[in-house]
Amino acid sequence: MAEADARIEPHERLAETLADPLSRVDALIRERMASENAPRIPEVTAHLVGAGGKRLRPMLTLAAARLCGYGGPYHIHLAATVEFIHTATLLHDDVVDESAKRRGRPTANLLWDNKSSVLVGDYLFARSFQLMVEAGSLRVLDILANAAATIAEGEVLQLTAMSDLATDESTYLRIVRGKTAALFSAATEVGGVIAGAPDAQVRALFTYGDALGVAFQIVDDLLDWTGTEATGKNVGDDFRERKMTLPLIRAIAATSGDAEARAFWHRAIAQGRQDDGDVARALRMLQDTGALASVRETALAWVAEAQAALAILPETPLRGMLHDLAGYVVARIR
Amino acid sequence: MAEADARIEPHERLAETLADPLSRVDALIRERMASENAPRIPEVTAHLVGAGGKRLRPMLTLAAARLCGYGGPYHIHLAATVEFIHTATLLHDDVVDESAKRRGRPTANLLWDNKSSVLVGDYLFARSFQLMVEAGSLRVLDILANAAATIAEGEVLQLTAMSDLATDESTYLRIVRGKTAALFSAATEVGGVIAGAPDAQVRALFTYGDALGVAFQIVDDLLDWTGTEATGKNVGDDFRERKMTLPLIRAIAATSGDAEARAFWHRAIAQGRQDDGDVARALRMLQDTGALASVRETALAWVAEAQAALAILPETPLRGMLHDLAGYVVARIR
Repeated sequence: MAEADARIEPHERLAETLADPLSRVDALIRERMASENAPRIPEVTAHLVGAGGKRLRPMLTLAAARLCGYGGPYHIHLAATVEFIHTATLLHDDVVDESAKRRGRPTANLLWDNKSSVLVGDYLFARSFQLMVEAGSLRVLDILANAAATIAEGEVLQLTAMSDLATDESTYLRIVRGKTAALFSAATEVGGVIAGAPDAQVRALFTYGDALGVAFQIVDDLLDWTGTEATGKNVGDDFRERKMTLPLIRAIAATSGDAEARAFWHRAIAQGRQDDGDVARALRMLQDTGALASVRETALAWVAEAQAALAILPETPLRGMLHDLAGYVVARIR
Repeated sequence: MAEADARIEPHERLAETLADPLSRVDALIRERMASENAPRIPEVTAHLVGAGGKRLRPMLTLAAARLCGYGGPYHIHLAATVEFIHTATLLHDDVVDESAKRRGRPTANLLWDNKSSVLVGDYLFARSFQLMVEAGSLRVLDILANAAATIAEGEVLQLTAMSDLATDESTYLRIVRGKTAALFSAATEVGGVIAGAPDAQVRALFTYGDALGVAFQIVDDLLDWTGTEATGKNVGDDFRERKMTLPLIRAIAATSGDAEARAFWHRAIAQGRQDDGDVARALRMLQDTGALASVRETALAWVAEAQAALAILPETPLRGMLHDLAGYVVARIR
């Protein structure tokens, strides 16, 4: 059995172990997604919240609650909360800015308009808010309210940092904490809090979620350069959107003494005038400066931090799965 | 003194009476609007949350709390919460759809892009959420979470009802309850709840806010047809946007036996093909069918309901001001 398990990916093993509560989360999501007053809402959300997603964030909440011995019903509500917040964020991210429209990317906006994306996202936020109030814990509400503010700040900061060559690693980290890690860490933390776990365990769960989220986003940003068709993205999409991700930040820093490179970054990122060969040229610079290799090391360090945080939690098979899940995040980089 | 007061508009008298808590609300709003991580946020919100607005919604919370004898500090938080939700909603309403862009309306989007409006709105929602959690009342959180869901549903419903000639009065009322009355009634209700008022008083405050909000929106929709330059809107803007407001719904119902009128509504609203004289023609039909006069009566009936609800609340000058405020809402119709 153990050998058979080893051939399954860690997130699939987690999903198997948590199959029962996950199906209750799915049922709750379907129930709360409906709107008697506005039937369009489930039409918009069905393709986002429907089956098929990895349910990574709700699994984190369920796993944290179980790991801390929770026996009540509210981990289901909190897992659904976290998934609703994630989905609302996706909808709001989808709001078409002119450049995305020109590139003809398939977003929800090609099916529905901007306003639907915004307002249905707001509806999901409100629904998530109702679900967490039902859990009845002011401490949980405090954590999720703070996470919501951090997420929004991160998204705004990403917008203002776009095409700004002066963006440094600390700004990048604040963006990543906001857009990705804040929800991961809230997901794990509230699982511990609802279970009434000791403070040290709650802190460990926070640290695990935070480090996992940071690693996850760094790997995502790396895959933008090294990914294949399998990732569903085109190589260099972030570069075309002039997003200042870690690989780019490090390559720009490494070439600061090279006038020709500086002129290239200025034209392609700051001014946004890009030619056909620019993605390939940037990719070569990211390889030659060692930026890609060093970013991979950084992602591995965050994974190690996530795994180390688990040490004080109860030594169960579930803890092992969370350990392996962190490793899986970087295993996506081939 | 009493005679001098009579010359001041009711909302100004309320603002005078609540000057001290209102200034504390303003200070809290300024403090929480700031974002160390994303300096653009206050730039976007300053022109919306800054001084100058009527602060109608926060005044309702402050008045309800004082009327019920509240002595604690959290009416300030809840009043700021309500204003943040209102401002976030305005920002999200502003998201440009193509038609608005073509008409070249000055919205926040001409200064900032769509994404900023969405994400800064999300930030204000998150901030409002933090403020209400600080008030520490799960019952208040429940009321505000439900209001947030009703608001979003109302906005989505308005979107789907747009240009739909089959929209009836009950759908209109659900839209109005969502986009306007839900926040008014939550504002008054939480004021009573935080004060620990008896259930009957809390229900009365809810009914007052709900009826006031419905009246307020009906009058707004009426002013779209009868307003002057002073309202800052052009006559017929809702008609151009093909919004199914109450005056239009009644005029369409009143002309259902008239083939020529039906063809006109079909072309101008359902198909959206409008000519230069169409607003004037529609306005004449709204007058000739008596739709405008009957909608005015409906608004007055809602005002009367709001005022009647106040009867069981303590008979203080503040209650009188809330009574007059309701009357003022329809006094805007000349």
